Amino acid sequence: MSKIAIIDQSTSKFTKDTSLSFQDLACDPCSKILKKCRDKSLQIDAVILSTTSDIQYGSSIISEYLGIKPKISQRLDNLCSSGTNAIVSAYSLIKSDLCKTALVVGADIRETKGSRLLWDISRGSFTLPVYWAAIFAKAHMRKYGTTEEQMALVAVKNRENAYHNHNAVFRNKISISDVMNSKKYVEPIKMLDCSYICNGASAILLTNEEEAKKYTDRPVWIEGIGSSTEGASFSNVSSDLSCIRSTVMASKMAFSMTEIGPAQIDVAELHDAFTIMEILAYEDLGLCQKGKGGRFVSENSLVTNPRGGLIGAGHPLGATGVAQTVEICEQLNGLAGKRQVKDCKTGLVHNMSAAGSSSLVLILT
Amino acid sequence: MSKIAIIDQSTSKFTKDTSLSFQDLACDPCSKILKKCRDKSLQIDAVILSTTSDIQYGSSIISEYLGIKPKISQRLDNLCSSGTNAIVSAYSLIKSDLCKTALVVGADIRETKGSRLLWDISRGSFTLPVYWAAIFAKAHMRKYGTTEEQMALVAVKNRENAYHNHNAVFRNKISISDVMNSKKYVEPIKMLDCSYICNGASAILLTNEEEAKKYTDRPVWIEGIGSSTEGASFSNVSSDLSCIRSTVMASKMAFSMTEIGPAQIDVAELHDAFTIMEILAYEDLGLCQKGKGGRFVSENSLVTNPRGGLIGAGHPLGATGVAQTVEICEQLNGLAGKRQVKDCKTGLVHNMSAAGSSSLVLILT
Repeated sequence: MSKIAIIDQSTSKFTKDTSLSFQDLACDPCSKILKKCRDKSLQIDAVILSTTSDIQYGSSIISEYLGIKPKISQRLDNLCSSGTNAIVSAYSLIKSDLCKTALVVGADIRETKGSRLLWDISRGSFTLPVYWAAIFAKAHMRKYGTTEEQMALVAVKNRENAYHNHNAVFRNKISISDVMNSKKYVEPIKMLDCSYICNGASAILLTNEEEAKKYTDRPVWIEGIGSSTEGASFSNVSSDLSCIRSTVMASKMAFSMTEIGPAQIDVAELHDAFTIMEILAYEDLGLCQKGKGGRFVSENSLVTNPRGGLIGAGHPLGATGVAQTVEICEQLNGLAGKRQVKDCKTGLVHNMSAAGSSSLVLILT
Repeated sequence: MSKIAIIDQSTSKFTKDTSLSFQDLACDPCSKILKKCRDKSLQIDAVILSTTSDIQYGSSIISEYLGIKPKISQRLDNLCSSGTNAIVSAYSLIKSDLCKTALVVGADIRETKGSRLLWDISRGSFTLPVYWAAIFAKAHMRKYGTTEEQMALVAVKNRENAYHNHNAVFRNKISISDVMNSKKYVEPIKMLDCSYICNGASAILLTNEEEAKKYTDRPVWIEGIGSSTEGASFSNVSSDLSCIRSTVMASKMAFSMTEIGPAQIDVAELHDAFTIMEILAYEDLGLCQKGKGGRFVSENSLVTNPRGGLIGAGHPLGATGVAQTVEICEQLNGLAGKRQVKDCKTGLVHNMSAAGSSSLVLILT
């Protein structure tokens, strides 16, 4: 079977406020890609829209806005991991020869309903994700001695990275004491430990091996895909609340498709919905030993969340997984400007949803 | 590449009223399938939920209700063709070796927002589908002499078929004069020309060739898939309003994957959102000559909409494409009881969305 490549990528500015409609926002990152497609006479066969907004048949509407008539048009949702799920869907449509090229568009506006988990009654009144993040943080602190300062350092790093990302929602650097002194939401989680739900849209273009080589000298290959769903409610995330079991499973599945091991990853986009989630991701992806995540943030040489992560760049739910993938593609293509990781050849995307009850991992070269 | 099979299928009763929650309704047709999976030690790797309801990460929620932990979990929407789109997604996930088995669940409750097309301002105040159906009907009548009685005959046939389907929402037979004398909605469309949006859920199980043969003696093979999106608005359906261009394109694509021609189809599920749409489907799928659809309903030997179609069985938007596929699978398996089409070996599913601006065709053997 043909290998599948990402051959183009783009992202909108991520913003707190926007005057754009959902449709205009979703189309924003696509225009650059479509221009190049026209120049290269490449037709788009599928449009997959990832969003948590409740726009009906949104993929067909976006296709019409963009002036394209794809064979396949689907709108897809799995909450915060909608974006990478859309990439998996596009990958498999091409791999199975139903189409040659697929445009994946992730978009969300800040007011999306996805920010509250009203269905999961196992969370009681804990409908805001910060409550479950606090439970994970306390469990990890008790079991492994992880400190609030180590968590704060994740925020400092990601905000420093976002300073170099002109599409990020936050462009000012912060210090550990800024994080420690920011408003306490739920012990031990403070305001600056949290990602920020915002407006944003990102897009990538996928195709098969033959078309990829016509379009670009440096296709990014999807080498590994891992996905795992433990359920939907907090009570099903894991029996051990210092571990995200779905991430462990997705990571194993993704690496098993490749010859690559966690030690060979040069750059990683991790799902830092809260600082503690990045620390858990280090461990559950196998980037460091279990329990050592707190120290890993200051002691490792791996570059994580170079665009600023969800904490620095912002978190437009349905766009996030696509935006993470855009960043890895730009890094592997040497297009990341001041954020560029030297000599990076292998990247990883980690995207979660619903308190980590499902996870998706991509390995890209 | 392995062939992909549908190895099990089930559907709920379609109803005007229900006391079930969306989740319970969606799980209803799955229980029979899951019991057999447990007996056969077959694990479900993917759950794809098709719905127009605005339930967030619904596929993960349904998975949790069902007590299964799939690798891949996605909720998918393309309005009235969500169901067959979900089948295409499941097909491609298996075909591309990302999973072995996929459960496709289509479900909707009557109050879904999908019944009004509020986005498409090209329709002006014509937000209810009956308005565009009237435009198609008038165009076909003018161009080809199609009569209101021919359209009424489609309703009579489909309601007669539904009489034998214990899951159908309408179980009483009607006459041509019943249709002709029913309330006129928009000239020439009358109440009994219309499908009825209702509650319902349907599910199918897909797998690869190897697993299929372990599960059943009579897998149903997906031989052809065709899909086409002309846009999302009425103004993009077709320049000729007596033809659904997306159906013509999807049909060509589906048949081109097979050695089968339209004349070899033994049983077809057609998207009769309105009687005129079934007449257009005959023509645009190549089952009869263009312009001859009005006569085809009484003069053909092909069995169409044996379960009663959307007009007789009811139209729970996100479930419809799955329900159509359930019927063809039961027919090919000889399980259709009083509806059974003799010696049928080849079936077709035709599912549309948004005034026919997109269409999906499956060819099954």
